Amino acid sequence: MPQTSDANRRIVLAERPRGMPDDNTLRLETSAVPEPGPGQMLVRTVYLSLDPYMRGRMNDAKSYAEPVKIGEEMTGQVVGEVITSNVDGFAPGDMVLNGSGWQDYALSDGEGVMNLGPDPENPSWSLGLLGMPGYTAWAGLLLIGEPKEGETVVVAAASGPVGATVGQIAKIKGCRVVGVARGPEKCAHVVENLGFDACIDHRAEDFKEQLAAACPDGIDVYFENVGGKVLYGVLPLLNAFARVPVCGVAGWYNLDGLPDGPDYGPMIMSTVLKMKVKLQGFIIFDSFPASTYKDFRRDMKDWLDQGLIEYREQVVEGLENAPAALNDVLEGRSFGKVVVRVG
Amino acid sequence: MPQTSDANRRIVLAERPRGMPDDNTLRLETSAVPEPGPGQMLVRTVYLSLDPYMRGRMNDAKSYAEPVKIGEEMTGQVVGEVITSNVDGFAPGDMVLNGSGWQDYALSDGEGVMNLGPDPENPSWSLGLLGMPGYTAWAGLLLIGEPKEGETVVVAAASGPVGATVGQIAKIKGCRVVGVARGPEKCAHVVENLGFDACIDHRAEDFKEQLAAACPDGIDVYFENVGGKVLYGVLPLLNAFARVPVCGVAGWYNLDGLPDGPDYGPMIMSTVLKMKVKLQGFIIFDSFPASTYKDFRRDMKDWLDQGLIEYREQVVEGLENAPAALNDVLEGRSFGKVVVRVG
Repeated sequence: MPQTSDANRRIVLAERPRGMPDDNTLRLETSAVPEPGPGQMLVRTVYLSLDPYMRGRMNDAKSYAEPVKIGEEMTGQVVGEVITSNVDGFAPGDMVLNGSGWQDYALSDGEGVMNLGPDPENPSWSLGLLGMPGYTAWAGLLLIGEPKEGETVVVAAASGPVGATVGQIAKIKGCRVVGVARGPEKCAHVVENLGFDACIDHRAEDFKEQLAAACPDGIDVYFENVGGKVLYGVLPLLNAFARVPVCGVAGWYNLDGLPDGPDYGPMIMSTVLKMKVKLQGFIIFDSFPASTYKDFRRDMKDWLDQGLIEYREQVVEGLENAPAALNDVLEGRSFGKVVVRVG
Repeated sequence: MPQTSDANRRIVLAERPRGMPDDNTLRLETSAVPEPGPGQMLVRTVYLSLDPYMRGRMNDAKSYAEPVKIGEEMTGQVVGEVITSNVDGFAPGDMVLNGSGWQDYALSDGEGVMNLGPDPENPSWSLGLLGMPGYTAWAGLLLIGEPKEGETVVVAAASGPVGATVGQIAKIKGCRVVGVARGPEKCAHVVENLGFDACIDHRAEDFKEQLAAACPDGIDVYFENVGGKVLYGVLPLLNAFARVPVCGVAGWYNLDGLPDGPDYGPMIMSTVLKMKVKLQGFIIFDSFPASTYKDFRRDMKDWLDQGLIEYREQVVEGLENAPAALNDVLEGRSFGKVVVRVG
C-alpha cells in the first residue's frame, strides 16, 4: 500500500516489546488525512529516519524522553514536503525537517520545524550527516571527548551514521582511529572509504586481542554507542585521563532487567578510578548550548567542501518496511545511515 | 616490641593477598637504623596513616601507583620527627609529613617532605583533615561534583575521614546531605555531630527504600568511595546531569576477578546515558593543578576557625597493630580517621 493523498498511514506502538521488537510490537493503521486549521500546515512525509534510540522509546521507563504511548504513532524525524500552509515562513513545496514520526501526514504549527527550502541538495542528509547523528558525532567527540593530535580514538558501530562521522572527524583532528564494526564488508568500508587506521570485527573470537593489537599506545577516547562486549574489551586498554562520551548503548536497548553475570560493575568503576577516566552521557539536544549547533553546521560544511567526509546512506522503500528495517538497525545488519522513503 | 633508637622495625609485604589480607600477607622485620649521608636526614615515625587505598597497592596490577614489591615495606604517609639532618630547611626536632611507609625510621633528601615545624597543633591531622583525605574530599566534591545550593549530595563511608569532610563541606555549600555508613552508632554520629540531614545504615535490609525516602528530590551528586550495593542503590535515584566523583571503590578492593552476576554494567552505562551523568575518577595528587592545594588549605582553615568542621580520629597504639587495624578500615569496623601511634 503506497502513500496516497486520501489516507494517512500511521505505524503505532501496539504493545511494549520484551527484548527485540516482533510482529506484535507495531501496527499499521489508516486514518483520514488531517486538515490544517489557522496557524497550521500539512506536511507530507518523504523520508523517515530510523535510529537506535527508537527502541528505548518503546519502553515504559524513566529516560531522557517520554515513552511512546500504546496506540500512538512511533516518534521519529522526517524530511517532508509542505502541502498546504497557514504558517508564516512555510510555503507549499518547501521541504522541512520535522519530528512528525512514522506516518504519511502530520499537522504542524512550525514550532521546531526547520525549513530546508524548495529544492535542497540531498534532503535526506538532514536526517544523518547534517542532522542529529552528525551533530551527535561532532559534539560528543569534540566537546566531551576532546581528542588531541596523536591520541588514539576508538569508535564502535563505525560504519553507522554516528560512528562513521566520529571517526572521520577524529582523523581530521590528527588522531589514530580504530573502528569496531560487524563483519568484514563493513570493516573494509571503514578502512578503505572512511580512512580509519584499522577496523575490528566484533564477532571475531579473538576480538579483544585484535583490539589491543590495533591500539599499541592504549585508548585515549572511546566513543561509546553500543555497550556490551566492545565496552568490556575497551576498558583494560584505556589510558590515564581517558574520556568516554556515552552516546548510546545500542547493544543493551533490548535488555529486560539485569543480564546474567559476571558483574562487570566493579571493572567499570575500578577502571574509572585507577585511570582517572571521565565517562559522560549526553543527549544531543539537551547537553550542549544551542549555539554549538551552528558551529557544527559550519565545520561540517567546510569538511564536505574539502572532500574530507564520506557519507553512506541506505534507503528502504515504503513505510510498511520500516519495522523490519528498524530491527536491522538494532541488530547491526544495516549499513550506513538508514532512511525510509515513505512517499 | 616498642619503638627504640637502635632498631628499625619494618612491616613488609610477605605475599600478595587474595581477598582480605590475612596473617600471611604482612611480616614484621627488624633491621639497623640507617645512617644519613650528605644531603640526607633521618626521620623517626610518630604517626602512620591507614587508608583504604593501601589494599590496592598489595595487588600486582596496573593501577595509578606502582604496587608494593614483595619484601618491601608497605607504603604510607607518616608524621615523623627529624632526628639528624643534613638537609637545608630541616632541623632536629622538626615534625614532617613524609611518605616513608610502615617503619620506625627512614632516610630522606627532603624531596616531597612537608615541614610542619617543631611544635604543630594536632600533628596527626596532617594525615587526615588537613592532608590527603581532606584534600580528596574538598577537590572531588567541589571541582568534579560542583554542588549547587539546594541540591542533594549523597556520601558513602560517611563517618570516614573523606566522607565526613565531603558531607560537611556540602552542608556549608547549602546542600541536602545524606550519608551512608555502617551501623546505628556511626549513623547517629553522622547526623548528630557532623550535621548531615540523614544517614542510612547500608546493612539495613531495606537500604534502597530508606535511601530513596531520604532523597525525595533525587540525587545530584554522589561522592563514590565504596562501590557495591551503595552504588547500585544510588543509580536509580540520580537526577539529570548528576555528577559522580569516583574517589575509591573500597568495597571492591579485595575482589579477585569479576564477581558473580547479575551484570550491573548495563545499568551503570544506561543510567550514565539517560540521565546525562558525568562519572569521573580522580587521584588526588594527579588530577588537579598544584595550585588548588593552597585553596584547600585556605578554605579548611577558615572553616575550622568558624567551627564549621568536626573531625574524629581513632588512634591505634603500636606499629605491630597496624595490619589488624588496616583490615578494620577495609571492612568498615573503624570509626573516623585511623592513625597508628608508632613512637
